[in-house]
Amino acid sequence: MKKIAIINGPNLNLLGKREPSIYGSRSFEDYFEELKKQYPDVELRYAQSNVEGELVNLLQQAADCDGVVLNAAGYTHTSVAVADAVKAVGVPVVEVHISNILAREEFRHRSLIAPYCKGSIIGLGLCGYRLAVEALLSEDY
Amino acid sequence: MKKIAIINGPNLNLLGKREPSIYGSRSFEDYFEELKKQYPDVELRYAQSNVEGELVNLLQQAADCDGVVLNAAGYTHTSVAVADAVKAVGVPVVEVHISNILAREEFRHRSLIAPYCKGSIIGLGLCGYRLAVEALLSEDY
Amino acid sequence: MKKIAIINGPNLNLLGKREPSIYGSRSFEDYFEELKKQYPDVELRYAQSNVEGELVNLLQQAADCDGVVLNAAGYTHTSVAVADAVKAVGVPVVEVHISNILAREEFRHRSLIAPYCKGSIIGLGLCGYRLAVEALLSEDY
Amino acid sequence: MKKIAIINGPNLNLLGKREPSIYGSRSFEDYFEELKKQYPDVELRYAQSNVEGELVNLLQQAADCDGVVLNAAGYTHTSVAVADAVKAVGVPVVEVHISNILAREEFRHRSLIAPYCKGSIIGLGLCGYRLAVEALLSEDY
Amino acid sequence: MKKIAIINGPNLNLLGKREPSIYGSRSFEDYFEELKKQYPDVELRYAQSNVEGELVNLLQQAADCDGVVLNAAGYTHTSVAVADAVKAVGVPVVEVHISNILAREEFRHRSLIAPYCKGSIIGLGLCGYRLAVEALLSEDY
Amino acid sequence: MKKIAIINGPNLNLLGKREPSIYGSRSFEDYFEELKKQYPDVELRYAQSNVEGELVNLLQQAADCDGVVLNAAGYTHTSVAVADAVKAVGVPVVEVHISNILAREEFRHRSLIAPYCKGSIIGLGLCGYRLAVEALLSEDY
Amino acid sequence: MKKIAIINGPNLNLLGKREPSIYGSRSFEDYFEELKKQYPDVELRYAQSNVEGELVNLLQQAADCDGVVLNAAGYTHTSVAVADAVKAVGVPVVEVHISNILAREEFRHRSLIAPYCKGSIIGLGLCGYRLAVEALLSEDY
Amino acid sequence: MKKIAIINGPNLNLLGKREPSIYGSRSFEDYFEELKKQYPDVELRYAQSNVEGELVNLLQQAADCDGVVLNAAGYTHTSVAVADAVKAVGVPVVEVHISNILAREEFRHRSLIAPYCKGSIIGLGLCGYRLAVEALLSEDY
Amino acid sequence: MKKIAIINGPNLNLLGKREPSIYGSRSFEDYFEELKKQYPDVELRYAQSNVEGELVNLLQQAADCDGVVLNAAGYTHTSVAVADAVKAVGVPVVEVHISNILAREEFRHRSLIAPYCKGSIIGLGLCGYRLAVEALLSEDY
Amino acid sequence: MKKIAIINGPNLNLLGKREPSIYGSRSFEDYFEELKKQYPDVELRYAQSNVEGELVNLLQQAADCDGVVLNAAGYTHTSVAVADAVKAVGVPVVEVHISNILAREEFRHRSLIAPYCKGSIIGLGLCGYRLAVEALLSEDY
Amino acid sequence: MKKIAIINGPNLNLLGKREPSIYGSRSFEDYFEELKKQYPDVELRYAQSNVEGELVNLLQQAADCDGVVLNAAGYTHTSVAVADAVKAVGVPVVEVHISNILAREEFRHRSLIAPYCKGSIIGLGLCGYRLAVEALLSEDY
Amino acid sequence: MKKIAIINGPNLNLLGKREPSIYGSRSFEDYFEELKKQYPDVELRYAQSNVEGELVNLLQQAADCDGVVLNAAGYTHTSVAVADAVKAVGVPVVEVHISNILAREEFRHRSLIAPYCKGSIIGLGLCGYRLAVEALLSEDY
Repeated sequence: MKKIAIINGPNLNLLGKREPSIYGSRSFEDYFEELKKQYPDVELRYAQSNVEGELVNLLQQAADCDGVVLNAAGYTHTSVAVADAVKAVGVPVVEVHISNILAREEFRHRSLIAPYCKGSIIGLGLCGYRLAVEALLSEDY
Repeated sequence: MKKIAIINGPNLNLLGKREPSIYGSRSFEDYFEELKKQYPDVELRYAQSNVEGELVNLLQQAADCDGVVLNAAGYTHTSVAVADAVKAVGVPVVEVHISNILAREEFRHRSLIAPYCKGSIIGLGLCGYRLAVEALLSEDY
Repeated sequence: MKKIAIINGPNLNLLGKREPSIYGSRSFEDYFEELKKQYPDVELRYAQSNVEGELVNLLQQAADCDGVVLNAAGYTHTSVAVADAVKAVGVPVVEVHISNILAREEFRHRSLIAPYCKGSIIGLGLCGYRLAVEALLSEDY
Repeated sequence: MKKIAIINGPNLNLLGKREPSIYGSRSFEDYFEELKKQYPDVELRYAQSNVEGELVNLLQQAADCDGVVLNAAGYTHTSVAVADAVKAVGVPVVEVHISNILAREEFRHRSLIAPYCKGSIIGLGLCGYRLAVEALLSEDY
Repeated sequence: MKKIAIINGPNLNLLGKREPSIYGSRSFEDYFEELKKQYPDVELRYAQSNVEGELVNLLQQAADCDGVVLNAAGYTHTSVAVADAVKAVGVPVVEVHISNILAREEFRHRSLIAPYCKGSIIGLGLCGYRLAVEALLSEDY
Repeated sequence: MKKIAIINGPNLNLLGKREPSIYGSRSFEDYFEELKKQYPDVELRYAQSNVEGELVNLLQQAADCDGVVLNAAGYTHTSVAVADAVKAVGVPVVEVHISNILAREEFRHRSLIAPYCKGSIIGLGLCGYRLAVEALLSEDY
Repeated sequence: MKKIAIINGPNLNLLGKREPSIYGSRSFEDYFEELKKQYPDVELRYAQSNVEGELVNLLQQAADCDGVVLNAAGYTHTSVAVADAVKAVGVPVVEVHISNILAREEFRHRSLIAPYCKGSIIGLGLCGYRLAVEALLSEDY
Repeated sequence: MKKIAIINGPNLNLLGKREPSIYGSRSFEDYFEELKKQYPDVELRYAQSNVEGELVNLLQQAADCDGVVLNAAGYTHTSVAVADAVKAVGVPVVEVHISNILAREEFRHRSLIAPYCKGSIIGLGLCGYRLAVEALLSEDY
Repeated sequence: MKKIAIINGPNLNLLGKREPSIYGSRSFEDYFEELKKQYPDVELRYAQSNVEGELVNLLQQAADCDGVVLNAAGYTHTSVAVADAVKAVGVPVVEVHISNILAREEFRHRSLIAPYCKGSIIGLGLCGYRLAVEALLSEDY
Repeated sequence: MKKIAIINGPNLNLLGKREPSIYGSRSFEDYFEELKKQYPDVELRYAQSNVEGELVNLLQQAADCDGVVLNAAGYTHTSVAVADAVKAVGVPVVEVHISNILAREEFRHRSLIAPYCKGSIIGLGLCGYRLAVEALLSEDY
Repeated sequence: MKKIAIINGPNLNLLGKREPSIYGSRSFEDYFEELKKQYPDVELRYAQSNVEGELVNLLQQAADCDGVVLNAAGYTHTSVAVADAVKAVGVPVVEVHISNILAREEFRHRSLIAPYCKGSIIGLGLCGYRLAVEALLSEDY
Repeated sequence: MKKIAIINGPNLNLLGKREPSIYGSRSFEDYFEELKKQYPDVELRYAQSNVEGELVNLLQQAADCDGVVLNAAGYTHTSVAVADAVKAVGVPVVEVHISNILAREEFRHRSLIAPYCKGSIIGLGLCGYRLAVEALLSEDY
């Protein structure tokens, strides 16, 4: 049975509560329940933290997974530490962003993490998480 | 029946023939046949051109579709004309890149087209095209 | 009888059809008919293309005109080839932009073509084409 | 009867006296007399100052006009104060430059004022002032 | 009774102990006691953390306040995560800096947080905290 | 009796008349009358000019004051001359901006004057002037 | 018998007709006839296009040659698509520029194509084409 | 007896486990045991954290030491908070990097921390820690 | 009899009164009296203004002189208007700076005026004015 | 009999000895002997130095030649002195680089010398020297 | 017996004579005598030159050593030639700087040489030379 | 008797021989003879070198002078080594440039040496040397 960890970064615990025009109105917990139902044969784990170093910890702990879905939120643009953890973890990581960060403020255009990821899925809403899982399970990415 | 156009840009006609270490060894035509089988209820169109202005034409002609999957290849980084066509076409466009352009040369990091797209799928191989179709058919992106 | 060529670049064939809040709601063909009526003593030609190299061709073919009105649209900001054609054509070229490109995205602020033109008319709507013709016919620009 | 104010910035009082290869050999006063004759139904005002803050004053005083033609000369590239006055005055302002500033030194390429103007007319000599008046009187800019 | 949270970032726990030439010689705890006396009708809370993600937590917890006074110290210049939390918290935040960061090293000139704050008070010593409270209680800021 | 000079720069004479969504709807003169009432024991002076050099003059004349509150408006971002006058005047100067200039256009983010001021108060509306007076009277800034 | 393709980009069809002070007064067709005479044992092909995507096509078609001499003219500085075609074609490409582009406008200094070429010959007039052929035939480059 | 604290930042807990080609194959704990044997007369402390703010805490706690050896890893390039803690701690800090960060990605070339350190030792492997201790014990650095 | 105008910019009326460590302790008026004595055969004029546009006026009025010595102070770094006046005045202008502006803040390193001057004398104190007069009278500069 | 000087810069004395994967395995002396045999009617001189100023000397001494072939190696990217010598020498200079410097580190992309040369030959191995001689002897470069 | 060469660059012959606050008061010759005593089993060579090309020569001559300690002083920041010599010499080179160049002027922050060195030791005074020797003799750097 | 050393950098040995439109037609040796006659009470020394490190030597040897006049020519813009020698020599140095380097290519605008000099005299021809001597002898610079 394949294991995939989903790791969310800062402020994503507010999903569904704040700024719904940007991030939608569903909480991630609700979404995650649905997702697990769609993939009964996959062990899906989920964790969230507002702390940069905690994301490093979570990535290190995912070393036994077959893949990681990572939305590092604000740390995407500023964290070499998280990028290094992606590089060190040794399993494929797919980066997800709910909103189209390339259509927002300039400082959100650069991802320090992306170069070390397998790939990125940007701007496709919560659907992006499912697509990332799909990609990690796919044989031809 | 939903209609989705897939538009490929310069040098993607060589897919499967050259630089397999970056782009894989399957031709896009083969991949496209499989893709159509996976989505029997969707009208999938495909076109490729090496000419920037031809991509503008193809985007304008896709105005009757429900969505567009666009891999503008080299024009991604240099074409305001294609970006303006994405903006003008009035249907959701999802940008796809086969390789992880964010892990390659610096000039490949910037997409002039991305800000006008619904979203981007990067680095997930040919699988990215299927995920893009999936996203365009999904209700929650 | 003086000859003036009007050359429009990519996506301007959509004028009047899309994004009317930026570009107005009249098609260029309609506008061009009126313009010809206003200048019965001038031979006015009109051509449009979405292809960068086609604009180079059109500029080269305008070498027998007394002036050119050029709206290169998206190629304005990216095309050295069109700029070189302006430089090579040997007749005065006036650059026109319908919207105020200096009030839009930063990448629209730079015109590669402007340094080789006689001058530029920006942000004055379709009226800019008439003013450009006026300038080319005037003796004191 | 429509009112249009023409405001000229620093060193334009030397027009026709110095650097005729760049700015031509006619004084602005002579040109203005002709212009008034061409538009007998328009109340045309003219003022010039070398002082940045005086241009701010003149723009504020033009609040009762139907439009302003502004050649801020050297302040074009350096004055946020004049730009703010354009923004505050609440009537359409058309920026004019006699020479093609985009073909001169790099620091002349950027206009701080242009983003707040209706549009810009550049490089068409004194003729640019007439075209600006024309644009302000036109209904379709 | 109005509620205002004061949140201090990294190294501000050393206030009054180190670098008094830059930050003064009073501890923040002492200052806070005085401040509470000056505003007996306001519920003033205070918290400090050296951890970036902890500041995110504290900001999220302040969602029930009428305002926040935030001195993010070193994270001011580097933290998109804290900036996003300011944006998400939904109550007015006033940024305070004890020293004049605009007169110090260049990397201290840029605040990632300021654009999402109501305003900023910089360089006015501990007094800046009182002024920030004053502003949050005022009706005309 | 302490003396404090308030100096306002270009276009602030329009306060309350134009762009109320940015600058509010009260004139500075009205606000100043109230302010004087709040500080009966302070000699408050007020002057405004649209002319950069006039602000230099006003700053030089404030050398006999105990402090200056300066809103240089558009000259904030462009005037070395005003910055030098702040540096030369030898009394503490507090910079005030009514709107949050750090949340507006990029060219408004840099203040040439701030490094020479005691501190800055930004984005807190007219209230910022009162806070600046407060700071100048305070002993612990 | 070795095969070498010479591919010329935009405006080079005007060679000998326009701007002789920069590009000389001989047409490329004349030069090419002489060149063929100098290399009777080499199959020399020649093609020119003003269209960027057409240059991509021509490069792809040169995959059966032993080498390519490419003067991409204006596209040299702007075309990732042509650069990618050079990279994909799999035969050695030598870039030629007739004028010394490094002594002209700054935007002509950067070649996007050069990094993927075997080498570059710049500023040596039409002679550069012959030297490029020479290099491609040589064993020690 | 002199006291020296060694503080390691994010991902250095993986030392010896991952990416041995960059970081070698010995764990830091093993190395530290040897190091203590080499300096029996020095009290050597060691701590590691993946959390930026925890590094701030550890630096503040080292105020009673005679020196600190700091490898802030990924935070080296992004953390003003850690830099401020180095500045505040008041004991000499020597920065160590195991790999030659100046020969790796550009974003690793800049250290925000170095200007506040006594000095830096870069690229000399684990040996760098010993040299740093040596330097802190030396009288002539 | 030769005529030379000396024109001083903003804050130089404070010379000898403020910041003597940078600008010395002699007023310019005193210095000017001595200078006139040293050059009895030269008509030396002197004027100072804090207003940028006034410097433009003074430069225009110096058109009948044999040379101008200009210390534009703060406007040196920001004024295209003064630079244009130097260019327009048609007599040789020598730029003088009392302090070594190249050893001060970065924004003082760039002179917009220098490219249009005959030359510059920087950092040699009031002596620079005499050397500038000397240079203007010399035949071999 | 025509005279051509070949001047090589720093580290080129190691040619054939070190880094053969970049520079090949033949020493320049061997190559030069062959070259002389190929051009029996040309007086070919050769000199090498590791000292920047020595290259300036060698260029000045080449003033009696009909042309110079210059490979300034590392000084290519840093030496204004050598560039000035090229400019001063008054005979055509062709710049040669053995490896494709445009495909190597970014700092090798800029040549300070190229703008003053007749042209450049890059990346074609030792063959580049022969082609440069050829170009200098040719009539149509 | 191992051989290590120490090479010092420009102005380091003044060590101990000038600017002792930055570089200390001991001459390098004195220091070198002590150093040799500390490493009786190592053949230590020392050379200094103010000439960039002479440093290239010295590095080439060190090809028979087991390691080089290089303080290129001012050439550190400007010399590609010295960097290339480091790259070519084929023995490990450790860069040393006496003062903390990362805490001084910005142009001293970049080392062109460091990427080709084994490592760098910065800011630890003359002690840095000993540490560099230590590192070169160590087995685990 | 005062001693002043004049030191000239690369290519200035060609003065009077080449590029007279920029540098005039008198050799420096002739000029120097005249200069010595004008200052019979000053010991004037003169030296020139094309070698950067030789200029460092010459500056170090001038430590017994009362002042140095330095025209480092091309090394002005590239040499940290010469700048450090100016800083180390401990006597006032006045930088001279014959042509107006601020009106020439951009790379000539920056002087690495100027910040360490007493002052600079630019663009006043050979006369600049005399003015520099004058300044060094003057008491009020």
